[in-house]
Amino acid sequence: MPDTTSPGEMSFLRNAWYVAAWPDELGRAPLRRIFLNQPVVMYRTEAGVPVALTDSCPHRFVPLSLGHLEQDDIVCCYHGLRFAPDGQCTLNPHGDGGIPRAARLRAYPLAERHGAVWIWMGDAAADPARIPDFTILGDAQRFATVQGVMHVAANYQLITDNLLDLSHVQFLHPGLRVANPVRQRHEMKQEGDTVWSYFWRDEGEPNKLLQLLGWPAGQRGDSRAHMRWDAPCLMLLDVGMTGIGQPPEAGMAAPSAHLLTPETETSTHYFWAFMRDTAREDAALSEKIRALGIQAFAMEDKPVIEAQQRNLGGAELMSLGPALLYPDAAAIRARRVLATRLAAETSQS
Amino acid sequence: MPDTTSPGEMSFLRNAWYVAAWPDELGRAPLRRIFLNQPVVMYRTEAGVPVALTDSCPHRFVPLSLGHLEQDDIVCCYHGLRFAPDGQCTLNPHGDGGIPRAARLRAYPLAERHGAVWIWMGDAAADPARIPDFTILGDAQRFATVQGVMHVAANYQLITDNLLDLSHVQFLHPGLRVANPVRQRHEMKQEGDTVWSYFWRDEGEPNKLLQLLGWPAGQRGDSRAHMRWDAPCLMLLDVGMTGIGQPPEAGMAAPSAHLLTPETETSTHYFWAFMRDTAREDAALSEKIRALGIQAFAMEDKPVIEAQQRNLGGAELMSLGPALLYPDAAAIRARRVLATRLAAETSQS
Amino acid sequence: MPDTTSPGEMSFLRNAWYVAAWPDELGRAPLRRIFLNQPVVMYRTEAGVPVALTDSCPHRFVPLSLGHLEQDDIVCCYHGLRFAPDGQCTLNPHGDGGIPRAARLRAYPLAERHGAVWIWMGDAAADPARIPDFTILGDAQRFATVQGVMHVAANYQLITDNLLDLSHVQFLHPGLRVANPVRQRHEMKQEGDTVWSYFWRDEGEPNKLLQLLGWPAGQRGDSRAHMRWDAPCLMLLDVGMTGIGQPPEAGMAAPSAHLLTPETETSTHYFWAFMRDTAREDAALSEKIRALGIQAFAMEDKPVIEAQQRNLGGAELMSLGPALLYPDAAAIRARRVLATRLAAETSQS
Repeated sequence: MPDTTSPGEMSFLRNAWYVAAWPDELGRAPLRRIFLNQPVVMYRTEAGVPVALTDSCPHRFVPLSLGHLEQDDIVCCYHGLRFAPDGQCTLNPHGDGGIPRAARLRAYPLAERHGAVWIWMGDAAADPARIPDFTILGDAQRFATVQGVMHVAANYQLITDNLLDLSHVQFLHPGLRVANPVRQRHEMKQEGDTVWSYFWRDEGEPNKLLQLLGWPAGQRGDSRAHMRWDAPCLMLLDVGMTGIGQPPEAGMAAPSAHLLTPETETSTHYFWAFMRDTAREDAALSEKIRALGIQAFAMEDKPVIEAQQRNLGGAELMSLGPALLYPDAAAIRARRVLATRLAAETSQS
Repeated sequence: MPDTTSPGEMSFLRNAWYVAAWPDELGRAPLRRIFLNQPVVMYRTEAGVPVALTDSCPHRFVPLSLGHLEQDDIVCCYHGLRFAPDGQCTLNPHGDGGIPRAARLRAYPLAERHGAVWIWMGDAAADPARIPDFTILGDAQRFATVQGVMHVAANYQLITDNLLDLSHVQFLHPGLRVANPVRQRHEMKQEGDTVWSYFWRDEGEPNKLLQLLGWPAGQRGDSRAHMRWDAPCLMLLDVGMTGIGQPPEAGMAAPSAHLLTPETETSTHYFWAFMRDTAREDAALSEKIRALGIQAFAMEDKPVIEAQQRNLGGAELMSLGPALLYPDAAAIRARRVLATRLAAETSQS
Repeated sequence: MPDTTSPGEMSFLRNAWYVAAWPDELGRAPLRRIFLNQPVVMYRTEAGVPVALTDSCPHRFVPLSLGHLEQDDIVCCYHGLRFAPDGQCTLNPHGDGGIPRAARLRAYPLAERHGAVWIWMGDAAADPARIPDFTILGDAQRFATVQGVMHVAANYQLITDNLLDLSHVQFLHPGLRVANPVRQRHEMKQEGDTVWSYFWRDEGEPNKLLQLLGWPAGQRGDSRAHMRWDAPCLMLLDVGMTGIGQPPEAGMAAPSAHLLTPETETSTHYFWAFMRDTAREDAALSEKIRALGIQAFAMEDKPVIEAQQRNLGGAELMSLGPALLYPDAAAIRARRVLATRLAAETSQS
């Protein structure tokens, strides 16, 4: 049960894929990010292959991200040690130039897939086949994508709760709300370790996103918001609207990805992406969608979730005996799956 | 003895009245304040009755103060739970709308009395009759009042020390100092749990406050500063000046209230008010008095007390064996009364 | 071994001389600094004698540095207690004026010597003869000096590591680098508790400092950088250049002092001074040297060492099993000497 999970060692699933960066964030300038309390430096080789290394030189523990690249290697700014993408020290400019055994960095497996750069922080074998299917995120042929990354000063599970319970959209996000639906319902489904959270709002008015994509403001329809969750905190949202009583295929879709990577116990990198298959070349539309996303995530979700984290202090949410509501079912289920996975990982290590 | 009191659980008297707000601070916009480490949201009902509830929704622990009011209830911004002034959940907009048993807030007793809104943070019965007498603070017929609230990054007992030992005025507050008195004396008195700290300065020159109220700058007189303390940290000051050798009734009075409410172990809300029975309609005079108060409290007391707190680090003042001076008597006595009350409350709980 | 030294009590050598201030920093305005976690207030008497007292009044623990001087005494801003340079309370303006026994401050021994003001934080007898020889720093007849003090948010031992391993100059400090030397070598020497770290770079091009002092930019020479370390963290650097194959006396010298005083476990006062025996009256040259020093220390060393401290978190560097490089020898030796001294001091107390 999640409420017996103490924060700390069991808090992060290490043997899992997380998003480390959007592909265009990585280049020839070293980028430092902290994942699961570990400092990581990332860059691309001259051939464009992404690299992730511990961002701490094994000599004096200075961040390598303060240094510079030479061909495919990164050079420490402090004493010039040079490291290859596999973490091996390739140059010690001191003394006889011998490489001390301790002079190596942990190289983290990366996979560039589904339009994102994924990192594996654990000790088990890193199999990219275990990355959940985000094909549509990487399908540049079919979709235009607007994406961003936001830093949230809150535990990642609080953001998962937010995303698996989209009933909050009706209260917190005026721009994403489906107005005046005649009927609403919610279902939860678990298949293996994947959890689905389904919201339907029938015969309602389109939200601003659907209007931007072309749905007429005054025309009611049946809308859906179906969130898929995979451990530890990777979510794909199928949002769409169809004519009243019509099947989903007949309508309009606006899928989005919500990919969380814990930074620390109380902070998270939130990678988000909106996709669309209409007006793909319309840059002005992209900017309107970006503004809508930033309004919802940065101006509406972020302050609420950060205030929630502050109100919790150091306490784990479930340990406080929260009132449970009907649409919490999926979030509770996901917390349970995650707790089981965390317990299994801890017992193996 | 206070020096054996460890900070922490015993640090706050819970079964006591504290000032929560000045009456005009509360209205139809939710106001969040932390008292005794507890987040509280306050507002007024449509009929103007003040309300205080835990500022943490029992569902996800988001501050209710981020939400809005509907009639007399407050609605959580996150998932729309609605709570009445008594803390009961009155609307769950999800599922079948049933109200979970855990969906209720603690409602804190409030009393609007003596020109202030008082809050009761404890579990014992809240009897407004136990609020110390601050009649003159609420006596708008007789007194004009200038008031404010200041946040101080220091334990409330350090501010009590400050206020019960007004010998510091002569050193720290040029604008409130009685200059060149021929004689000075100090007495301390305890009646029940009330402590009085009396300072007399005879045949001195009036301070700036008394001059603002009309005492001629060059004319010497007998001045007094009599502070009354009630647990936990509620003080009333009678400041006045009379002709040399005259009885107090014959002179001029400028009473003030100094009402402390602990926020955390190391921070305090300091509610202050200056009263006067002369030139009650003179708004320009009110602003001059306000400027004098802000100069003394915010520019002179606050930095000194906050530096004191930093110098103390985590240590309790009395545990460090301070040098005791004659005018400390009242503050020491008040600390002793408070320690006894704290010990009694702890043993009962 | 240093790697068994836990941070905390054993972290500071107390019975040792540290630099408290440059002489011109002390005057008739009280100066507060924290040394070894102790707040200290410093000033000069009317005769110019430097004074150092605990910056915490024994009455209410307010910083005395918020007060003012009266002749040779310092007066507390809060209640007017007055203290002499020996720490004795000389005036209690309250009650019968008797001086409470607890009303005295710790007076720290100071010595003005070698162009610096030194402080002794320990309990053992303070013998100025134990100050290491920095004669050239105080030799205003022979040297012009440019000096400053920089606050670094890092443990002092990380800065010692930096200074005893000047191989980093070639990587981190473009303005101080000797370019393209034909040969480089490094030696370490220990004499008693003094450690020397010698770097030679033969037949290289002069760095910016040597050029400022008159060495022609295009002319190669043999350069040296010889750092002398004495516990706990006092360093003297002999930098110079001579014609190829010439003895040091024939060339140019630019000595500097690097004097560290721990503020807390994770912050340090870094007093630095550049000396020169040429163009001693050239104020514009002094400013160019100052700019060079600030560039190197504040813009290059400081951010790297502070990032190192953040990467270490609370861990002691040696406990992490760092890769050791050839030029680390002196720093490792100095850490060992210091650990021995710290252990001896702890066992005696």
